[in-house]
Amino acid sequence: MPENKALGRSLPRVDAMEKITGKASYASDVYLPGMLMCKLLTSTEGHARITKLDVSKAQALPGVRAVITGQDYPDVRFGSGALKDRYIMAKDEVFYVGEPVAAVAADDEITAQEAVDLIKVEYQPLPMVVDPLQAIADDATPVHEDMESFEGYGFAGGGNNCTLLDADRGDVKQAFRDADHTFEETYRSQPINQGFLEPMACVANVEGNGRLTIYASTQGPYQVRAQLASVLDMPLSNIKVIAMEMGGGFGAKLRLALEGFPAMLSIKTGKPVKLINTREEVFTLNGPRLETNIRLKTAVMTDGRIVAREAYSIFDVGAYLGAGPNSGVGHALGPYKIPNFKLRSYGVYTNKIYVGSYRASGVADMTFAVESHMDSVAHQIGIDPFEFRVINAVEEGDISVSGAKLPRNGLRETMQAVKDRIGLPKKLGAARGVGIAVGEWRSGSGPSTASISVNEDGTISMLTGSVDISGSDTSLAQIAAETLGVRLDQVVVAKRDTDMAPFTGPSGGSRIVYSQGKVVQMAAEDARGKLLSLASGRLGVPADALACEDGRVYVQDNTPQELSLGQLAQMSLTSPQGPIVGNASLSSMPYAPVYNTQAVEVLVDEKTGQVKLTRFVQAQDVGVAINPMSVIGQLEGGAVQGIGRALSEEMQIDPETGRVLNPSLATYLMPLAVDLPEIETILINVPSDEGPFGARAVAEPPGFGPPAAIANAIYDAVGVRITELPFTAERVLAAINGQKPKAGFIDFEKLFGEEFSQG
Amino acid sequence: MPENKALGRSLPRVDAMEKITGKASYASDVYLPGMLMCKLLTSTEGHARITKLDVSKAQALPGVRAVITGQDYPDVRFGSGALKDRYIMAKDEVFYVGEPVAAVAADDEITAQEAVDLIKVEYQPLPMVVDPLQAIADDATPVHEDMESFEGYGFAGGGNNCTLLDADRGDVKQAFRDADHTFEETYRSQPINQGFLEPMACVANVEGNGRLTIYASTQGPYQVRAQLASVLDMPLSNIKVIAMEMGGGFGAKLRLALEGFPAMLSIKTGKPVKLINTREEVFTLNGPRLETNIRLKTAVMTDGRIVAREAYSIFDVGAYLGAGPNSGVGHALGPYKIPNFKLRSYGVYTNKIYVGSYRASGVADMTFAVESHMDSVAHQIGIDPFEFRVINAVEEGDISVSGAKLPRNGLRETMQAVKDRIGLPKKLGAARGVGIAVGEWRSGSGPSTASISVNEDGTISMLTGSVDISGSDTSLAQIAAETLGVRLDQVVVAKRDTDMAPFTGPSGGSRIVYSQGKVVQMAAEDARGKLLSLASGRLGVPADALACEDGRVYVQDNTPQELSLGQLAQMSLTSPQGPIVGNASLSSMPYAPVYNTQAVEVLVDEKTGQVKLTRFVQAQDVGVAINPMSVIGQLEGGAVQGIGRALSEEMQIDPETGRVLNPSLATYLMPLAVDLPEIETILINVPSDEGPFGARAVAEPPGFGPPAAIANAIYDAVGVRITELPFTAERVLAAINGQKPKAGFIDFEKLFGEEFSQG
Repeated sequence: MPENKALGRSLPRVDAMEKITGKASYASDVYLPGMLMCKLLTSTEGHARITKLDVSKAQALPGVRAVITGQDYPDVRFGSGALKDRYIMAKDEVFYVGEPVAAVAADDEITAQEAVDLIKVEYQPLPMVVDPLQAIADDATPVHEDMESFEGYGFAGGGNNCTLLDADRGDVKQAFRDADHTFEETYRSQPINQGFLEPMACVANVEGNGRLTIYASTQGPYQVRAQLASVLDMPLSNIKVIAMEMGGGFGAKLRLALEGFPAMLSIKTGKPVKLINTREEVFTLNGPRLETNIRLKTAVMTDGRIVAREAYSIFDVGAYLGAGPNSGVGHALGPYKIPNFKLRSYGVYTNKIYVGSYRASGVADMTFAVESHMDSVAHQIGIDPFEFRVINAVEEGDISVSGAKLPRNGLRETMQAVKDRIGLPKKLGAARGVGIAVGEWRSGSGPSTASISVNEDGTISMLTGSVDISGSDTSLAQIAAETLGVRLDQVVVAKRDTDMAPFTGPSGGSRIVYSQGKVVQMAAEDARGKLLSLASGRLGVPADALACEDGRVYVQDNTPQELSLGQLAQMSLTSPQGPIVGNASLSSMPYAPVYNTQAVEVLVDEKTGQVKLTRFVQAQDVGVAINPMSVIGQLEGGAVQGIGRALSEEMQIDPETGRVLNPSLATYLMPLAVDLPEIETILINVPSDEGPFGARAVAEPPGFGPPAAIANAIYDAVGVRITELPFTAERVLAAINGQKPKAGFIDFEKLFGEEFSQG
Repeated sequence: MPENKALGRSLPRVDAMEKITGKASYASDVYLPGMLMCKLLTSTEGHARITKLDVSKAQALPGVRAVITGQDYPDVRFGSGALKDRYIMAKDEVFYVGEPVAAVAADDEITAQEAVDLIKVEYQPLPMVVDPLQAIADDATPVHEDMESFEGYGFAGGGNNCTLLDADRGDVKQAFRDADHTFEETYRSQPINQGFLEPMACVANVEGNGRLTIYASTQGPYQVRAQLASVLDMPLSNIKVIAMEMGGGFGAKLRLALEGFPAMLSIKTGKPVKLINTREEVFTLNGPRLETNIRLKTAVMTDGRIVAREAYSIFDVGAYLGAGPNSGVGHALGPYKIPNFKLRSYGVYTNKIYVGSYRASGVADMTFAVESHMDSVAHQIGIDPFEFRVINAVEEGDISVSGAKLPRNGLRETMQAVKDRIGLPKKLGAARGVGIAVGEWRSGSGPSTASISVNEDGTISMLTGSVDISGSDTSLAQIAAETLGVRLDQVVVAKRDTDMAPFTGPSGGSRIVYSQGKVVQMAAEDARGKLLSLASGRLGVPADALACEDGRVYVQDNTPQELSLGQLAQMSLTSPQGPIVGNASLSSMPYAPVYNTQAVEVLVDEKTGQVKLTRFVQAQDVGVAINPMSVIGQLEGGAVQGIGRALSEEMQIDPETGRVLNPSLATYLMPLAVDLPEIETILINVPSDEGPFGARAVAEPPGFGPPAAIANAIYDAVGVRITELPFTAERVLAAINGQKPKAGFIDFEKLFGEEFSQG
């Protein structure tokens, strides 16, 4: 490949030196003159009325500059979607253990903490509900007494149900009646934390003009701006959000998190205020995922064709709907042709920390259930699980749940690649097993903008509103470089804030390379068109006879006749059209699915129940890899997160109080290098029709497969099916010993039995 | 006027609160962790070879982190135009007293200064020349021995002549032969400093990725970037210039000044480095203006018609051409129809501090000569000076020196307005006099770009590369607000750096409102077009039936049918064209002249020669005043600078060494409030064809008239013509006493006599 080619090369990240030298600036690195430190007082009760909140002693402590409570904020509820269900800080009622009740700004952190300890709160406990099964019952204790007044609330699941997603097609009842076989299973996934390394952090500063500047660790600066404007009841134009470097987000930093507290304290004191979450707060304050219960019922013919599916799932959303309705209802079908279906997904309030986003977590929960169920059904009807998937796999032209026609895709190629690599079908030795699973996601869309300037020496400056996530800036710069025919090191990615860059959707949902990358390509093409037009006039040659490569525009038939990008940029300064700036804006991109197939081999210790992963192979259709090193890194990282979800990670929540019992990295068990096999990653290249250079999304799919693939491998190894995450040694051993799962499973029959299809 | 109207209202500046509360951040307010302080060692010699430069003791001083000399920089000369005549720091020769020879970075300023004092320099003096008259002679001592090798050098003025501007039309010799009268006079203007309050300051920081960030007090961040890239021999993309708030520039901060010193020290130390000029350095280190000698010869008919002019001027540029060729050669005609002319303007090197820009200073020098000369000629041929100007004043359709056809303009309106206000012709009492002068400038042009986003709540964010100067950000925001039909307080002007904003010319030469304002208007129109197109689709009404006003788009025939800008911006996020961003780029604007007529009344103390201004009236054709308060402020400030130039300001330069003798605000006499009359300013509104809403430029013209108007008033008062600036009491008294000017006048006859026209 030519030295100066930008596309498809494993080039080092544009921010590599900043990161490895420790010079990159995170929100916690921001030090402003006169800056105060903020500490939070959080609720010790799961549901209670605040009968007394006395901050006088805290306020009197020397060094304390301000104390705020919920009363300091405008009486405005906000939320992540239409459902506005929470205050930024408890007003006179708390709904979960860990909810912010007051905040202090002091000259230093120790004084702030001392002041927090001096605040006196008295609570009058209120009835509460922690278990989502109890919460969704018609006669359940209401989490939000006044919920009927919430805009958007009121789906008919009963009890504390707050959201419903549904999808139907065909005649499900008839299909179940006509089917050769019917299978029904229930799965449960656990509460889980995103596990980012950098705790949330923020500095808020009221500028001389009265505007607020927010230095944030965020994936979504425009979302933070919008929610903060709503919470503080001010116009967007009063707030500037500067997205600092981010040490992991995985969905947890898509929206307003802790920024509202230093913001109000800065307004009250007129000084900059910094808040850095403790690790405990990371686990107890902001949007993790909570448990999901999924009942799947599938009708199959003897030849292996699936003819119907009924799926009911209940997502525990905690005290507030922190992350919009649960995605993934359509994923109850998996990547399979199922002509008749009835899909229902309910969200339900409980008195627990509210949920956020985590790498398309609803889909991960659903994939665990669906791909375990597929394996289970295949075994029960006596078809090889891989073949069973092949029989049912969707194809180009099929109609997806959303009604979109499935475009060209690499599903079968990923399945075949994994089959070939690991060698399926395969029978391993005693207590060893192999399992597979397929994950599915769409290439993320949403509003995207970009602006690209050609500097006077032919180097390029690129402005986008998107935050770098996992090296996405590098991929965007490669797309710009390739389009304009320059080297990657000639492209500067501007650090951005919400004042200067136009609106762009958050960095999440696998949307950066596909959608933001597309708009960068369009902006670069716009700039290239202007370069060609200028060169055309100067060289006296039609624009379509010109090429833009190697930092120059030249006549294709007469390559020595050329102008460098620098010369053209210089000329532009005195040419009628002015300085060369390419611009583009888009709101959505066509549906482009992404498939990831995984196969794992495990060794199960039958005496202890311990599961050891001995091999991990995955293949994903990435369309085109803009930067293969970066793509592989993303795929490895996602797989590891999925493995953690499968084997060890779980937020333990007290069933009485809803309190998180293990809010630390010592007790919340993320996988270590020693727990992991080599991740073998295969890139499949079936270009998407619309993505930049054919690229598809990368990030979400690798996290979906591991729980089911591992469950299926455990079944293959020791003949037991584990339907509850994570697969701890205790749980696996119990299954080997023939014990049923102890608790937590929702009795779907009792809740929805009347409407269930019989078959 | 409606409350929410943005145009034509005297609204407070968008940065008013920041400025008055002291929260606005200037370059000297930047404090970065580990920041070092820089001090400079400057030359004590006017022209010498550096025979020894020993920095060892300085380097050994505890707390010193680096010492640099010219040897640390790449062997690259740079300059302000094609003529690359200087190194950023003396290599082995110095060319003026004050030239930087070494720089130190230390932990604190005192240590840095101590280290500077420990540097040993030995000089071998070289022949030098300080007087431009001597310097331009063929046998003069060359300032730059190797000057013939300079690209662009070598115009045929002889000696140290380095630039020539010329313009010719008609048969000048014949016209002089045929004229009824011929008049010849010589004028001299003095060395002068821009007098900005904020000394130049800069922080340079090498980022983790190896890029340089420059926090600068500059009018031209892209110019600083380009020159610094050339000096450090690196691509533009390695440098980010952040333009901080600026406490006055007036042309002195258009280009690279001191930024190259902290930049190199930051590269050497890997730490941030700050340099703030002392006031002495402000006077001795960077680009003031030096003396100008102007010979005018005019042929006039008895009826008052001017038929020919010959103008020769010599601009002293000091050691380097810091500000491009001298503007203003065409201004030797003044705003008058003169069918035959021969204009020559020479730049000449001397061993003095090199020149920079100062509010179109060449034109100010020329206007002093031309408008004094007009008065002198009028008196000599017995025509009232005002009438003499009216007879000759240019009109729409006349061909200007550059060949452009003079468009619609307000010259006669400004003259008439001043005449009416002050009551001309007018005879005042003993030792009292009235004088008039007319200044002329074009509305400044040059590359301009802007980008305007409509936020989700209908507020507006505006990004431009131009630096705020005298409230220009406010005017730009008013233009955007007016175009989009929103209030000024709904527009945010983003703080900018060279990474994120596309190339824009510097804030100078009266270009911001006319050219940058135009591109802002174009970008806002682009955004408005997108809003209308979106609304057209939603409302089912053609776009041309819609209006965009009061924060909404409505159907003109059915005003209740409307969508707010916020609604439309929200819709855009899911509409095919994506988020609404308006963009525009332009390189130049048509010629739009600006005229300013001034009349002053003076009282001359015949015993002491002291001149007191008793009245000052000016009228300027501003086209349309975007913000009248701001326009009037600009016009008053310019007039005051012109008054300082006329009466008191002068950099005294030692004729032997070229050293500046009065480098302080205690000895360089800027006018105080007590020295000034009320400035009566009249705004004339003859809209320009192309400026935003008809606006013309504002800034430069008011500074041109005062010297000539005051000289003419002194003549009217006491009958003596002062041809040398400033009009100190000593000089006026000497003239009253019949003494000729002592020194400094160039003998044009001796230099150019052979080519002079006879008549």
